[in-house]
Amino acid sequence: MVSSPPQIGKRSSSDWKALVRDFAAILGAKGVVQRKEELLTYECDGLTSYRVRPKLVLLPRNTEEVAAVVQLCDRHQLPWVARGAGTGLSGGALPVENGVLISTGLMREILEIDLENQQVVVQPAVINNWVTQAVSGAGFYYAPDPSSQIICSIGGNVAENSGGVHCFKYGVTTNHVLGLKLVLPDGSIVDVGGEVPEMPGYDLTGLFVGSEGTLGIATEIRLRIIKQAEAIQVLLADFTSVEAAGAAVSDIVSAGILPAGMEMMDNFSINAVEDIVETSCYPRDAAAILLVEIDGLAVEVTANADRIAQICRQNGAREIQIATDVQERSRLWKGRKSAFAAVGKIKPNYYVQDGVIPRTQLPYVLAEIEKLSEKYGYPVANVFHAGDGNLHPLLLYDEAIPGSLETVEELGGEILKLCVKVGGSISGEHGIGADKLCYMTQMFTEVDLQTMKWVNQVFNPHGLANPGKLFPTPRSCGEAAQTKMGIADRHLGADLF
Amino acid sequence: MVSSPPQIGKRSSSDWKALVRDFAAILGAKGVVQRKEELLTYECDGLTSYRVRPKLVLLPRNTEEVAAVVQLCDRHQLPWVARGAGTGLSGGALPVENGVLISTGLMREILEIDLENQQVVVQPAVINNWVTQAVSGAGFYYAPDPSSQIICSIGGNVAENSGGVHCFKYGVTTNHVLGLKLVLPDGSIVDVGGEVPEMPGYDLTGLFVGSEGTLGIATEIRLRIIKQAEAIQVLLADFTSVEAAGAAVSDIVSAGILPAGMEMMDNFSINAVEDIVETSCYPRDAAAILLVEIDGLAVEVTANADRIAQICRQNGAREIQIATDVQERSRLWKGRKSAFAAVGKIKPNYYVQDGVIPRTQLPYVLAEIEKLSEKYGYPVANVFHAGDGNLHPLLLYDEAIPGSLETVEELGGEILKLCVKVGGSISGEHGIGADKLCYMTQMFTEVDLQTMKWVNQVFNPHGLANPGKLFPTPRSCGEAAQTKMGIADRHLGADLF
Repeated sequence: MVSSPPQIGKRSSSDWKALVRDFAAILGAKGVVQRKEELLTYECDGLTSYRVRPKLVLLPRNTEEVAAVVQLCDRHQLPWVARGAGTGLSGGALPVENGVLISTGLMREILEIDLENQQVVVQPAVINNWVTQAVSGAGFYYAPDPSSQIICSIGGNVAENSGGVHCFKYGVTTNHVLGLKLVLPDGSIVDVGGEVPEMPGYDLTGLFVGSEGTLGIATEIRLRIIKQAEAIQVLLADFTSVEAAGAAVSDIVSAGILPAGMEMMDNFSINAVEDIVETSCYPRDAAAILLVEIDGLAVEVTANADRIAQICRQNGAREIQIATDVQERSRLWKGRKSAFAAVGKIKPNYYVQDGVIPRTQLPYVLAEIEKLSEKYGYPVANVFHAGDGNLHPLLLYDEAIPGSLETVEELGGEILKLCVKVGGSISGEHGIGADKLCYMTQMFTEVDLQTMKWVNQVFNPHGLANPGKLFPTPRSCGEAAQTKMGIADRHLGADLF
Repeated sequence: MVSSPPQIGKRSSSDWKALVRDFAAILGAKGVVQRKEELLTYECDGLTSYRVRPKLVLLPRNTEEVAAVVQLCDRHQLPWVARGAGTGLSGGALPVENGVLISTGLMREILEIDLENQQVVVQPAVINNWVTQAVSGAGFYYAPDPSSQIICSIGGNVAENSGGVHCFKYGVTTNHVLGLKLVLPDGSIVDVGGEVPEMPGYDLTGLFVGSEGTLGIATEIRLRIIKQAEAIQVLLADFTSVEAAGAAVSDIVSAGILPAGMEMMDNFSINAVEDIVETSCYPRDAAAILLVEIDGLAVEVTANADRIAQICRQNGAREIQIATDVQERSRLWKGRKSAFAAVGKIKPNYYVQDGVIPRTQLPYVLAEIEKLSEKYGYPVANVFHAGDGNLHPLLLYDEAIPGSLETVEELGGEILKLCVKVGGSISGEHGIGADKLCYMTQMFTEVDLQTMKWVNQVFNPHGLANPGKLFPTPRSCGEAAQTKMGIADRHLGADLF
């Protein structure tokens, strides 16, 4: 089956030598990384508690080289994992033992900019932020903005269907990918989607986005860019209860207002931030604050800001701050943007959870998380995309205390189960990767999962593409536990949300 | 292979009798239609030039009955076609000879309305318009609005990924489907998607939407509903050249304005409309008119209307009419809404084409269509969704003149090739169905198509679900030509755009 890694006879060193020679013939000697010290960098992605050293790292420069490398893997039944910038938080780019890692790192070119049709074509290792930089002079930007946007790659964004603060209004990555050039696991090159959004036939572009490297490698990505808004305002409202803040979020949406982003932080996070960053605009005694960004025409933004302020007040907001210029807006955002780093100072380690709930369940779920936190005896800070109900509870612990990581993971699992119970999802934007395999059965029936596996088998019949990810099997769940080394980095994911 | 219908031995009449008995055991006697007069209705969908009489029509009432019927088809290797309201224009619901038609016609219930989470769950035969009617009292609506919305079903909309006048701003059907309960061709029941938009795993909801009945039958559909806008205005601008109107469309979008809809009509259509409907607001000497609908906050709508008017004037618009109240708006829309019916009065028959082009190619493509029209000697009226470059050229002819349908189809094919040449698509919203199989190779390479066929084979391994649709094969292209009876209805698709 798809999700159990193929039987990799441990190849002899002469077999590997022959493989290195063959890969070098495609990529040049510099394109094949095999020294142990160099391989270290590739042992994990942003989820540092899982580590596996790949046998080789391959560095193709274009579609043809990717195809040749993948063909060679197919011929030798060699499992492979594709990796972009390695900032993912679910271990989606975790290498497979005795397999190769295909890094897109050298494919960093913006291939085409078509302002008239509002499209850009990029290679997979182009950094998210570069796209906006390349077109901002002409008044455009690329909307999906994961907090890691200055270091994460578009290829990785496509694999994980990344979200971001501004995805509440503009949609996640899948809503901004028009077409892809793909190398499938048999090494064939396929074009899906195209220059116009409506294409006949199956939506293979949509199928591929979010497939976490299990269906192939995107080597060229056609992105939609959008026009910068005329005006932007940021509004900060503080509440004396989490329920009130949650109700305000619901009421804003119910009023038909679509803010560009709507973020919430709880009292714990607020104080963590004020301890470190000293924004002096986040009230320490607030139970929760809401940060709402509104964009559009100047008249529209002003009118919406007024309505949002009114709704917040109706829900008991104490104070409302509104920022209109760039500097003021940055000041209000600063605390949110450094929240993870700040929380990380309180305890040596934290574990970031990523779940989604229907927006209307916010007050209930936050109260339940508080109860779970007390039951397990670990503090939980809540910083999240409130607009789309995408929670990011941060579970604080100290790895020096034996068994704490395991307990915290159990607590994290309870939070995911809670998300599923209220009709939500076990991942909003970080993906399943190697980390959440075993929660997939919480969300999907056997038949649902089997249907996805069928699709996987079509593209990935020998299970060589990113084995052991996305799909739960008794074996892979067991294995994942074994590869986990408990090395939780103090800076795990800091600033990446 | 997928796209060639299975070898259907012509079953003996005793075989059919046994099948009828088995189907009736599931559906009751009334759920199995077999009388020839009753079967007539089901010979074609909105594309009346293709007709095939099914052996039986089956009328399940719920998911379980659909599953039981499909299982029986699987057991007997009986090909089947699903049908909603039968308003499709590409022959997607064309029956297959010696096969059965599964009509969702009795599944017309709205199962759930969740205003708080802005969702509605419906059975497939619920009419598009009913969704809006069910929630409009609370200030919501369902955005995708094909012109057939008062008679077309949500199930059909899902199968064809239907668009509509307001899809420029709000997106087509796929952007509004959150989840589906599906019966797959082996009769298994699968849930894809869910209550929150971001779900882990493959986006099977997106894969299914637009799959034209070749992957299974959606028996429950979870739709996103959105809040009605505070204000709406409609603006009519008239131009002395098609190029100028096309340039205005480009400039409006480039200015970052996102109208709810943006429609264009050429001189031929304007005069056809004025002959019949006498709107008295469409100037007969205009080369083209633009109809732009803007929605949002009142202040925003007014500001955008001003900017759009200014852009139109800069591009040489002569007169600009703006309608703010319902009555005035209806008056401006009236001509557009009756354009197809009006054009249909000029010649006994017309053939509607459906293609997409990058918006920037509008002036070039319209000029080329004019040349093709002259070359072939058949008038072409252009009425279309200019915002998303979705053309609907109407090719006028008289079926009484031998060979005219064939020539018009050839002309239609030339227009599609032109769309593909400029980077567009052979279908914007009507689908491929039985009608455009043979143009798929214009748009996709053999490898691209093979990839889609692989996906088909996963779900539809015996090719029983809607055989002969979507995928070109030498055989199916030949067969399609044979089933075409040349009975082009005078009212073919009238008012349905």
